Amino acid sequence: MVIDVFRATSAIITALQYGVKEIIPVKDIEDALEYKAKGYITAAERKGEVVEGFDFGNSPFAFMKPELIGETVVLTTSNCTMAMLQVKHAKKVFAGAFTNISALAEMLYRENEDVLLLCAGWKNKFSIEDSLFAGALTNRLLNNYDFGFDSDCDSALSSLTLYHSVKDNIPEFLRKSSHRQRLGHLNLEKDIEYCLKKDQATVVPQFDGHAIRVAEVAVLNPE
Amino acid sequence: MVIDVFRATSAIITALQYGVKEIIPVKDIEDALEYKAKGYITAAERKGEVVEGFDFGNSPFAFMKPELIGETVVLTTSNCTMAMLQVKHAKKVFAGAFTNISALAEMLYRENEDVLLLCAGWKNKFSIEDSLFAGALTNRLLNNYDFGFDSDCDSALSSLTLYHSVKDNIPEFLRKSSHRQRLGHLNLEKDIEYCLKKDQATVVPQFDGHAIRVAEVAVLNPE
Repeated sequence: MVIDVFRATSAIITALQYGVKEIIPVKDIEDALEYKAKGYITAAERKGEVVEGFDFGNSPFAFMKPELIGETVVLTTSNCTMAMLQVKHAKKVFAGAFTNISALAEMLYRENEDVLLLCAGWKNKFSIEDSLFAGALTNRLLNNYDFGFDSDCDSALSSLTLYHSVKDNIPEFLRKSSHRQRLGHLNLEKDIEYCLKKDQATVVPQFDGHAIRVAEVAVLNPE
Repeated sequence: MVIDVFRATSAIITALQYGVKEIIPVKDIEDALEYKAKGYITAAERKGEVVEGFDFGNSPFAFMKPELIGETVVLTTSNCTMAMLQVKHAKKVFAGAFTNISALAEMLYRENEDVLLLCAGWKNKFSIEDSLFAGALTNRLLNNYDFGFDSDCDSALSSLTLYHSVKDNIPEFLRKSSHRQRLGHLNLEKDIEYCLKKDQATVVPQFDGHAIRVAEVAVLNPE
């Protein structure tokens, strides 16, 4: 489970919810430019802004366009792409954020496997909004689905405690955070508000090592 | 500021408080054995236990001995030594834990420099008791000494929030944590209780790249 609340995984969820066929995450601007030269729709974000020469960045709203329905989009972002590529050899790789928390929890329950929550962070540093979401998801899995957590994992305990202590006012709490301040400077209030609202999407993105598509939900108790 | 609450920095603080002259931290068991062969008093801990062939490990109580007064002790531990060696090129390196929190806060205030709190963790993983102490110290510096924190540092904000949410019952909260459980299995209840009590020492250990000794406290407003 890769988490990059502001804004990559939120944007990927939105894209697939609005009908984008698949997203190909790439590491470098150069790789994205190669795809662009071949005629692909390309999105690139660095330091919270759209990279010059690209169609758009990672604002969720940029992916809510009728002309993207059924299309392939190539995406490179500061942190999320790196995180996804790091775990691409995992059995399954999903993308999560507040916008698909319920769909995600249900999916993880049906998968019936150990879950690792990988917070993308910011330039190899800890980002509080990602851990907060990890806490929200942990809370959901423990309370609604009877998951337990690895007693060796203090980061799950810490994320859960963090979530419990601020859950009634997450937007206000995050005003003090680093990434929130960075995005605030870029006048992305609307994006932030969107990224913090639960359950605006029912899809769970899944990365197969090459592209991110809507995951198929396992049927419970098949006959 | 290196933090390893269970138990290395707590033990180092105790050692210096009880009169040990200096502690030489070394990375490997082999290095410690070389010192031992030369006649040094040597302490070694791995996986929470005293390593065979050494005089003692990192229980704070092992350092409360009259025969250690004025002596040099060579110490190798799982995580703290590594952390200290990682930052040995910093302007100054101190060691902190609950047992010297007030002395430490006063020292950092007098130093009047930027402070980086380095949590030693456990085998390169996050340890909740170290972050909890980082939160306690951050709280002290913000409230009593008018420090601010780097708005780019979500880990300080997270540690502070964690501390605020559990500060009234830290021992109970930590029963759920990984390291606490590891030590609990080793019957180290007495050590744990000791390591969580504030202000049992007035010394601040300082590492000069070779040895750890009691730091000299700067005099405020010297005439």
